[in-house]
Amino acid sequence: MKPKPVITILAVNTGSSSIKFSLYESGQTEELLFSGSLTRIGLTDATFSVNDPQGRYIDCEKVEAADHAAACRHVFSWLTQHGPGMPDAVGHRVVHGGPRHTAPEKVTPELIDSVTELVPYAPEHLPQALNAIRYATTELPGVFQVACFDTAFHSTMPPLAKLCPIPEQFRKQGVQRYGFHGLSYQYILSQLEADGDPLARKGRVIIAHLGHGASMAAVLDGQSVETTMGFSPAGGLVMSTRTGDLDPGVVLFLLQQGHLDSDGLRDMVNKKSGLLGVSGVSDDMRDLLDAEAENPQAHLAAELFCYSARKHIGALTAALGGLDMIVFTGGIGLHSPEIRERICAGLGFLGVMVDPEKNLKPAGVISTDSSRVVVKVMETNEEVMIVRQTRRVLEGR
Amino acid sequence: MKPKPVITILAVNTGSSSIKFSLYESGQTEELLFSGSLTRIGLTDATFSVNDPQGRYIDCEKVEAADHAAACRHVFSWLTQHGPGMPDAVGHRVVHGGPRHTAPEKVTPELIDSVTELVPYAPEHLPQALNAIRYATTELPGVFQVACFDTAFHSTMPPLAKLCPIPEQFRKQGVQRYGFHGLSYQYILSQLEADGDPLARKGRVIIAHLGHGASMAAVLDGQSVETTMGFSPAGGLVMSTRTGDLDPGVVLFLLQQGHLDSDGLRDMVNKKSGLLGVSGVSDDMRDLLDAEAENPQAHLAAELFCYSARKHIGALTAALGGLDMIVFTGGIGLHSPEIRERICAGLGFLGVMVDPEKNLKPAGVISTDSSRVVVKVMETNEEVMIVRQTRRVLEGR
Repeated sequence: MKPKPVITILAVNTGSSSIKFSLYESGQTEELLFSGSLTRIGLTDATFSVNDPQGRYIDCEKVEAADHAAACRHVFSWLTQHGPGMPDAVGHRVVHGGPRHTAPEKVTPELIDSVTELVPYAPEHLPQALNAIRYATTELPGVFQVACFDTAFHSTMPPLAKLCPIPEQFRKQGVQRYGFHGLSYQYILSQLEADGDPLARKGRVIIAHLGHGASMAAVLDGQSVETTMGFSPAGGLVMSTRTGDLDPGVVLFLLQQGHLDSDGLRDMVNKKSGLLGVSGVSDDMRDLLDAEAENPQAHLAAELFCYSARKHIGALTAALGGLDMIVFTGGIGLHSPEIRERICAGLGFLGVMVDPEKNLKPAGVISTDSSRVVVKVMETNEEVMIVRQTRRVLEGR
Repeated sequence: MKPKPVITILAVNTGSSSIKFSLYESGQTEELLFSGSLTRIGLTDATFSVNDPQGRYIDCEKVEAADHAAACRHVFSWLTQHGPGMPDAVGHRVVHGGPRHTAPEKVTPELIDSVTELVPYAPEHLPQALNAIRYATTELPGVFQVACFDTAFHSTMPPLAKLCPIPEQFRKQGVQRYGFHGLSYQYILSQLEADGDPLARKGRVIIAHLGHGASMAAVLDGQSVETTMGFSPAGGLVMSTRTGDLDPGVVLFLLQQGHLDSDGLRDMVNKKSGLLGVSGVSDDMRDLLDAEAENPQAHLAAELFCYSARKHIGALTAALGGLDMIVFTGGIGLHSPEIRERICAGLGFLGVMVDPEKNLKPAGVISTDSSRVVVKVMETNEEVMIVRQTRRVLEGR
């Protein structure tokens, strides 16, 4: 097999008021050259920073960036002036692919139009990504670009898992369960495969991506069959600031009793609930764990997170018909042994036994030797997945 | 122990446009004298009917009943003219007791005021019950009345299970997880106890009340520790016409894209979703099972019901830390071996093994002898529970 030519690929990940970017050399493997971000987009103190692969600052400055297109322009201008020049390709993380985009795709005007139609599905995320993609398409016509969809991984879910139990006229508007965090799940599976773990292809695995946004995927024989997030990233688990799944009666009560209008509801459901809403003090699990000894509400919030995770592991295991492995990843999943231990503590009935010593390790297997279910901690890397998918599309695979 | 004096107690169960009533002799046990209903209240063809304990019609006539108070008046007038006269006590099923009413209570003007304040929590159910209670209080001052709350059984749930992950200002409005179908769960537990089953007091039991409205309770050592319905009866399982728990993003999308206003949403979530919404043909499981061979949507609806039930059994088992028994009850739970079999088919990992022969029986144990989890079918009787609770309050116990 002849070695692949080495090319550079830029992975772009747009947030609501930020762009994160990572430049990789993509050959036999992926090698990080730079990573950075432009934060506080649209504000007067927008800040651009670049790190080397060891995380050391290379550059940091206040910049002007009125929108995500301007931010994108700044990133490319820095790459040309201070970096290795223009990348050979750009891969964009696109949170929502709707019912039609079930694999990474080359960015074309038609694709942009199609994703633009999906904005109502993810009004908090898609406009920013489109802003960056449009800039790069018109201003950098020579650069090959790929859209990598976070929903695509779950396109293998069976019809039952995709179904929203509402009348057909509304399902026809595209209301179905899509699932998110697909790039993270795909990366974890590819690492399991690279590690030679047979469960990557055959078996029942739950991957728990627990970060500010949190979801779990039920993976059967390497394919997603169920996930906790549904139509939007607000569903499923209790999260840092999101409610997760909710009795719709709660929403109706708040709306019909005049406590909130629909914009207020959107704000509450997405930004003021979850750990923040329960604790009243922080949306960050580290703060809650620090505070819980003195603050009962902080303790309650942390406990609710674990309880919600445990119940969803139970539900996903029912969807899988049993369980062989749990993988913890994401900021909380990777860095919080306490939370992993508390989630798993009530799961002995599934054959989950965490070894308290091993659980203190930063990564690897944390279950006991006799645990029927293997429990692992793994670092995810959505950027590398974007790079791999971009290269695959570039090569026409 | 001296035998209890025999008294008559009327159990009243108000629906949105109906009243069901059952007159019992309450002594050492409860003996049904008559049961009946007044349906289509508020319509020109309101219909009153009474059956004897064998289910034979005693009386059936078109009547005038503009509201639930008028319906109540008709029931009492029939009892005085054609039945055994006024009952010694009346027990009312009250769907929602809010945070304060955690046990059956004697009806007083204060209680009525307090329940009236709860109407926003259950606008589909409480006004009708209050209408009947108010009539009976003012018009029948000599009759002892008791309110039996469907939420009360779940008042033992731990704080985590009651918590709704939204900001405190809204939780202070009484938004918490209450749970429903408590009278049914209490009856099932009392029957397990009467049968001498030690699991009634010690162990991990899921009771699945599967009817037009459907919920499950996780019962640990005889007490509710978790349930699928939450703040309102619209949450939890996929039901005949209700969605069950939903990604709040779905509600926000339909609202903000102008597909529905808040009244339309309430209607959709409560009356047009679930089995009816998915199948497009019926909200009745019997119809769907009859139709599913020819109608893929009917099949999908029935399958979704079972899939949702299976996932919730997984989640409740995680809340219980394991499982010793599942009890099926309610119209579907009692009468549909197919549905019971399909729900349990994916639960082998919990040690659930249903015996296909035993499963055809109308009631009793349907699990195999080697099944680690006992699976039982039992008939529930909310009316008898109302009678028992009413008598208990009457006797000051």
